Amino acid sequence: MFKQISSPQNPAIKRLLQLQEKSRNRKKEGLFIVEGIREIQLALKGDFQISELFFCDELHPAEQISGLLKIGNKPEITEISSDIYNKLAYRGSTEGLIAVFKTKEPNLENLQLNKNDNLLILVAEAPEKPGNIGALLRTSDAAKADAVLIANPKTDLYNPNIIRSSVGGVFTNKIAMASTTEIIAYLKDLDVAIYAAALQASKNYVEVDFTGSSAIVVGTEATGLSEEWRRNSTQNIIIPMQGEIDSMNVSVAAGILIFEAKRQRGF
Amino acid sequence: MFKQISSPQNPAIKRLLQLQEKSRNRKKEGLFIVEGIREIQLALKGDFQISELFFCDELHPAEQISGLLKIGNKPEITEISSDIYNKLAYRGSTEGLIAVFKTKEPNLENLQLNKNDNLLILVAEAPEKPGNIGALLRTSDAAKADAVLIANPKTDLYNPNIIRSSVGGVFTNKIAMASTTEIIAYLKDLDVAIYAAALQASKNYVEVDFTGSSAIVVGTEATGLSEEWRRNSTQNIIIPMQGEIDSMNVSVAAGILIFEAKRQRGF
Repeated sequence: MFKQISSPQNPAIKRLLQLQEKSRNRKKEGLFIVEGIREIQLALKGDFQISELFFCDELHPAEQISGLLKIGNKPEITEISSDIYNKLAYRGSTEGLIAVFKTKEPNLENLQLNKNDNLLILVAEAPEKPGNIGALLRTSDAAKADAVLIANPKTDLYNPNIIRSSVGGVFTNKIAMASTTEIIAYLKDLDVAIYAAALQASKNYVEVDFTGSSAIVVGTEATGLSEEWRRNSTQNIIIPMQGEIDSMNVSVAAGILIFEAKRQRGF
Repeated sequence: MFKQISSPQNPAIKRLLQLQEKSRNRKKEGLFIVEGIREIQLALKGDFQISELFFCDELHPAEQISGLLKIGNKPEITEISSDIYNKLAYRGSTEGLIAVFKTKEPNLENLQLNKNDNLLILVAEAPEKPGNIGALLRTSDAAKADAVLIANPKTDLYNPNIIRSSVGGVFTNKIAMASTTEIIAYLKDLDVAIYAAALQASKNYVEVDFTGSSAIVVGTEATGLSEEWRRNSTQNIIIPMQGEIDSMNVSVAAGILIFEAKRQRGF
């Protein structure tokens, strides 16, 4: 049978809570938490290494575990009581599964994009809200974008709110994090046209030709893109806004731009 | 000078907290809370009646208040200490202003849409997350949509998370809440074509002509649109998704659809 933990004071449980709550602990241990069957499956399919699996027998009977772990390496498996599960579980789901995975370094070098492909890349500079990053990752999954690049990141990729709000998009996309300077150099090296969403000196996005290799770059809602992006862009683009608020949610704006590119490319 | 409150135990402060936290209290009193200069200005401009204004002199000096209240009726004004302000303030801003406004009944009858206009209407069925509703309202403000209709609502419009995440969109849009059945009847009466985002028997949204009077209808991320919408639609539409997750954030999907309509209409 499996190892069992029923005391919330158990150090293994405290460690899991810290992996959820603290970026520093995730970095130090090179580990992060994934919750839910679908997400665990997508992580395994995305070649993430699972190191531990915690299950609550009442919610996810032990017999079903081997089916879940058909692919990938074999983790250490521990049964936890429903009290502990409820303490650990982030969302209201009742799937009864919490896994610990090894992080991957989201480096530009690991992307292995091909200059000869007609690339479509989404870049977000300094996005702040995990929910927005999650939504961006879902959109780029749906658009089958070639990569998502996060410039000057404000949070680590394995923040549980990003994992959760991306509903697996952290595992299905090619993702890299780097400085704005590095990403601009990388895109230029790949001959990718840079379309920076900006307010000044910008062209209506529907008048731009996204059929060649393109990177669509969005900034924060508060301050927009940095000068460095605007200076290095092939073309600054704008979504015309006719209301009184004059700002859109960043993940909505990115979705509109990416899907205009998809439309022009005939999906 | 103004009335002053410096004790957090003051019943007026407890009442404000309850207006923030409890839908029931908002409904009973017909009042809701707005925070921040920009939002208060948009509410006044949107013809909402202000009944009370609380300011923290350290953050928003009393002299500046008359400028804020140039339009609209005159509220009762109370000075609060920064302790109390910090207890009431939802967001990390330091604007020092909290206002109480009267709710409006978001009825279909109050919309006063004109059959002869080439209408563009956004409908969301049973949206759950206040953040998504806020993002929808920002998008429809940017698109200058004629109305936003919320079918089978799960929350009241004056939920502080909706107010906040819409950054004023609650005040700049024409909004109504009603049952799906009522909204379908209303749209048919206005001769508005109903385009329901669905998975079955659907046409790629870019192949649909949105240049006539159109309602774009989106459902929840979990269960999509109800059968009633799909049965009553002029055309079911779909955003082709090519990834592994097969779902998008609902406000992103709505943004893509609404702005495709804007593109076809030449903005």
